[in-house]
Amino acid sequence: MRKSIATVSVSGTLTEKLEAIAAAGFDGVEVFENDLVACPLPPEEIRLRADDLGLGIDMYQPLRDFEAVPDDVLKGNLRRAEYTFELMNRLGADTLLVCSNVSPDALPDDELAAAQLRLLAERAAGHGIRVAYEALAWGRHVSEYLHAWRIVRTADHPALGVCLDSFHILSRGSDPIGIEAIPGEKVFFLQLADAPRLAMDVLQWSRHYRCFPGQGGFDVTGLVRHVLATGYAGPLSLEVFNDVFRQSDARRTALDAMRSLIALEEALTPDGVPPVVPSGFAFAELATEGSAELSGILSALGFARTGTHRTKPVELWEQGGARVLLNAAPAESADEEPALVAIGLETPDPAASVKRAGKLLAPVLPRERAPRDAPLDAIAAPDGTALFFCRTGHADHPDWTADFPRAEPVPEGDVTGIDHVALTQPWQHFDEASLFYRGVLGLRPQESLEVADPYGLLRSRAMAGGGTRLVVNIARTVARQASRQHVAFAVRDLRALARRLRADHPGLLLPIPANYYDNLEARYGADPEIRELGLLYDRDEEGEFLHLYTVTAGRVFFELVQRIGGYDGYGAANAAVRLAVQHAERS
Amino acid sequence: MRKSIATVSVSGTLTEKLEAIAAAGFDGVEVFENDLVACPLPPEEIRLRADDLGLGIDMYQPLRDFEAVPDDVLKGNLRRAEYTFELMNRLGADTLLVCSNVSPDALPDDELAAAQLRLLAERAAGHGIRVAYEALAWGRHVSEYLHAWRIVRTADHPALGVCLDSFHILSRGSDPIGIEAIPGEKVFFLQLADAPRLAMDVLQWSRHYRCFPGQGGFDVTGLVRHVLATGYAGPLSLEVFNDVFRQSDARRTALDAMRSLIALEEALTPDGVPPVVPSGFAFAELATEGSAELSGILSALGFARTGTHRTKPVELWEQGGARVLLNAAPAESADEEPALVAIGLETPDPAASVKRAGKLLAPVLPRERAPRDAPLDAIAAPDGTALFFCRTGHADHPDWTADFPRAEPVPEGDVTGIDHVALTQPWQHFDEASLFYRGVLGLRPQESLEVADPYGLLRSRAMAGGGTRLVVNIARTVARQASRQHVAFAVRDLRALARRLRADHPGLLLPIPANYYDNLEARYGADPEIRELGLLYDRDEEGEFLHLYTVTAGRVFFELVQRIGGYDGYGAANAAVRLAVQHAERS
Repeated sequence: MRKSIATVSVSGTLTEKLEAIAAAGFDGVEVFENDLVACPLPPEEIRLRADDLGLGIDMYQPLRDFEAVPDDVLKGNLRRAEYTFELMNRLGADTLLVCSNVSPDALPDDELAAAQLRLLAERAAGHGIRVAYEALAWGRHVSEYLHAWRIVRTADHPALGVCLDSFHILSRGSDPIGIEAIPGEKVFFLQLADAPRLAMDVLQWSRHYRCFPGQGGFDVTGLVRHVLATGYAGPLSLEVFNDVFRQSDARRTALDAMRSLIALEEALTPDGVPPVVPSGFAFAELATEGSAELSGILSALGFARTGTHRTKPVELWEQGGARVLLNAAPAESADEEPALVAIGLETPDPAASVKRAGKLLAPVLPRERAPRDAPLDAIAAPDGTALFFCRTGHADHPDWTADFPRAEPVPEGDVTGIDHVALTQPWQHFDEASLFYRGVLGLRPQESLEVADPYGLLRSRAMAGGGTRLVVNIARTVARQASRQHVAFAVRDLRALARRLRADHPGLLLPIPANYYDNLEARYGADPEIRELGLLYDRDEEGEFLHLYTVTAGRVFFELVQRIGGYDGYGAANAAVRLAVQHAERS
Repeated sequence: MRKSIATVSVSGTLTEKLEAIAAAGFDGVEVFENDLVACPLPPEEIRLRADDLGLGIDMYQPLRDFEAVPDDVLKGNLRRAEYTFELMNRLGADTLLVCSNVSPDALPDDELAAAQLRLLAERAAGHGIRVAYEALAWGRHVSEYLHAWRIVRTADHPALGVCLDSFHILSRGSDPIGIEAIPGEKVFFLQLADAPRLAMDVLQWSRHYRCFPGQGGFDVTGLVRHVLATGYAGPLSLEVFNDVFRQSDARRTALDAMRSLIALEEALTPDGVPPVVPSGFAFAELATEGSAELSGILSALGFARTGTHRTKPVELWEQGGARVLLNAAPAESADEEPALVAIGLETPDPAASVKRAGKLLAPVLPRERAPRDAPLDAIAAPDGTALFFCRTGHADHPDWTADFPRAEPVPEGDVTGIDHVALTQPWQHFDEASLFYRGVLGLRPQESLEVADPYGLLRSRAMAGGGTRLVVNIARTVARQASRQHVAFAVRDLRALARRLRADHPGLLLPIPANYYDNLEARYGADPEIRELGLLYDRDEEGEFLHLYTVTAGRVFFELVQRIGGYDGYGAANAAVRLAVQHAERS
């Protein structure tokens, strides 16, 4: 299907926008009036520029506050329309978006609206232009898409049809099934946007919080199915007003936009290739940057260095099913510090995983491979972390662990594997990260949470599927800890492990304030061992959660978790305490 | 009146919060449970710390979801209450905030609520504690303050009263006059917060967008009058949840908070000293940082260098009533650039102006004065700009212009004076700036506007009064132009001036795209001269506005404006075009 996007959806000047949109592979654009008015190029040159970039101008938008007005207002409105038609002829655009009138001049008169839109369509047709009428969710008298369709049907002019916009329809809670009442040839245009579920004024919601399909809470795919059922064969066009995208790199936003349409198209195709969902973690790779802190912590936790890479300064540390790579390659700059740089994900078919990631525009990373190394395909996650697709310990696929000849047996201790990994995104990329992990890895996003940090707020969203749990954090804070990442190990008996660690390794675990335990006991009753061992505790309807944290090395710390029963969370209730203690740790 | 603030209102750890709050001069605090739980100090030490700082702990908050529950839930709730009482005894706090139940356990039964709150009050009294019951705006069954009062009256226990919170009352649109139905001795506590008028879910509004009294749209002063009418003699306590304050410097936020209470108290006092409203601009001072660009632009605009400071490298440039100081003092660092560094404001009584500014905690600037210089008192605005209080050309006060012996007569050209000055704030200080200019200078804030910038959004608020117009901007954008400032000159006949400037000084004025004029003509009809001269145009019901901009030097540019009729705006409709062209100017 033809893929378009409104110029308002990405940042920059009009020419920068067109370049970014073309680079992401779009077929066409909707030119937004404000972008054109502020552009120093005449419309003819904008047309040539778009043409050179392989972009069609699929729509010009919007003409506002046109219909259902008294005669004296109509005169001025027709002057605006004539200007717009001439402009569109210069621009080479043949579809005009007319959105339902929001002005106090508008009359609640559908017959008048139909008559004036018919007049507009007649004039438009004289310029080879067609008019797509859209119900804005906050239109003064026309705010429902079926109402707009009733007016268009009454007007009955071949150059007049409707424009459907998923935001305007779904934000009002309208049922999109009614779309199938509209003949496909009367659906002149389809605009798509998703949005998080927010209880706020719909105009503000629309202007600031729209996002790309798959990033929010609307069933955009379901809506598109209804539109396609009408026989609509025009573009899928994204129209997203978003405060964050306005401040982000246009090329990155445009790629993200294209990814959302590829995923949407795939969801519409019954025989589309489903994502290859990883079944768990093969490893977490940490750059040590010359510090022995990380190996010290791992060793204390019961890990052993079981192997060293044949050709690279990388050590394999293991315990149970948990594997950590410590990479001692020299830091590129002096202020580098220990950090999580890569994650290995177990997948039944690494080649299919990387192919799918590439299809969804994930950057596939080049690999410098020594002659005997096992092939390992990797992509870059939105925060720059490398994601490797692995198939560990299966005869049908080369095993990456073969590059780490084992010098020692794998210790079987309390740690059984990696429970989850928490990554910190730059704040602009929260929505992008959700879509990325959902589309590329098939993980299901959970509700995003907000946690108070002493110096700001942390927004956090867990994504899980097939045994893999990732937590994506962003921080709106001035504190340095905003960039922390962590690896959480699953532990069989955390009380036992904590007892041993408190005894043998004082200073290894994050100290938890006594006030926390007073409060915890008030809520859940006393469990003196939890206080004595300095554990954190949470519960939900399904079970209980014990966890604790190590001190931080560079940007990285470790969490130890024990899930009891069907507890499926991450101890979010304790995050504010953890953040406060971590701050004190550094100051 | 006693002044308090909830610890949640400022950033940092609990001890950092207490220090910042004490430094701002508060008498007491409300300790927020989350702050205490995350604090490594035991309650006894927190009490000592507060005591050392001269702070009373006026309230501990909150105990949630207590009242109107089934018996089995009550048992656990009483356990939480007992823990809280013991904690409060250790902390030395004698008032507990209980907010209305939001849990699904709560029953719609006022008798039950009253009976359980009575039981709670009895237990509290045993610990020397009193309970202040508050209706949360989103309480499950109790969300109106008069409903909370009805329950408290039914419970009829001396240790039970109400807590009133201006946000919970005003956000629901409740009439605060009903407060006078409550006996003053039953108003146990008063929490104050303002908020901008937003159409959104009240819980989200409360958690993220509260602000200090005078920064938002509520009549907090009116509400406090009703509370004082009851005989209430407790503290005025600020409780503000605000995402920006969470990320801001705690000491600065605490000072801002105190300023809001000082201004509020003043508004309550019939014989309070009103602000000395400036009557206009005495001058704008620009640091040239070694560049001749600014003098070149001023000269082209018709200004002449009329004098030079006796002892400092500062030139006085004048035209009509517009005065600009060019300060050639060497830049402190190599990357400094021309910038607006000070504004002179005309006031009938400079000493009274600076005294009032000091009372409202504005930083009074030290002045290095040469022996013969006229005394000039200055304060620092929130963005660091110096504000000088002047009395120019009056025999009753030393005249600062005497320090600039006039070498040339003041030219009378098209520029008649300074119309307004636009300052750019760091994004954290928008609310602070509004309160500052309102409180210190008595300017009236207008509605804030949002303008699309190619790389973000600009938020803008004009503040005016007594012939002085200031525009306060903040930019959420990655673009460098975010920090621009400008001085707008009032012009008698902008068409004539523009004609002369276009002819004699090509390249001086910002070029406006032809597309802008096509669009303008479509809206308002053709005025070929406006297009030919490259003017910008706006109109409202009261009149018309012509304006244009010079190119930028460093961070500074000039605007030329002509107000026709009663037009009282700033051409906001054209700001997006201006920003787009300014970006292109630099790239």
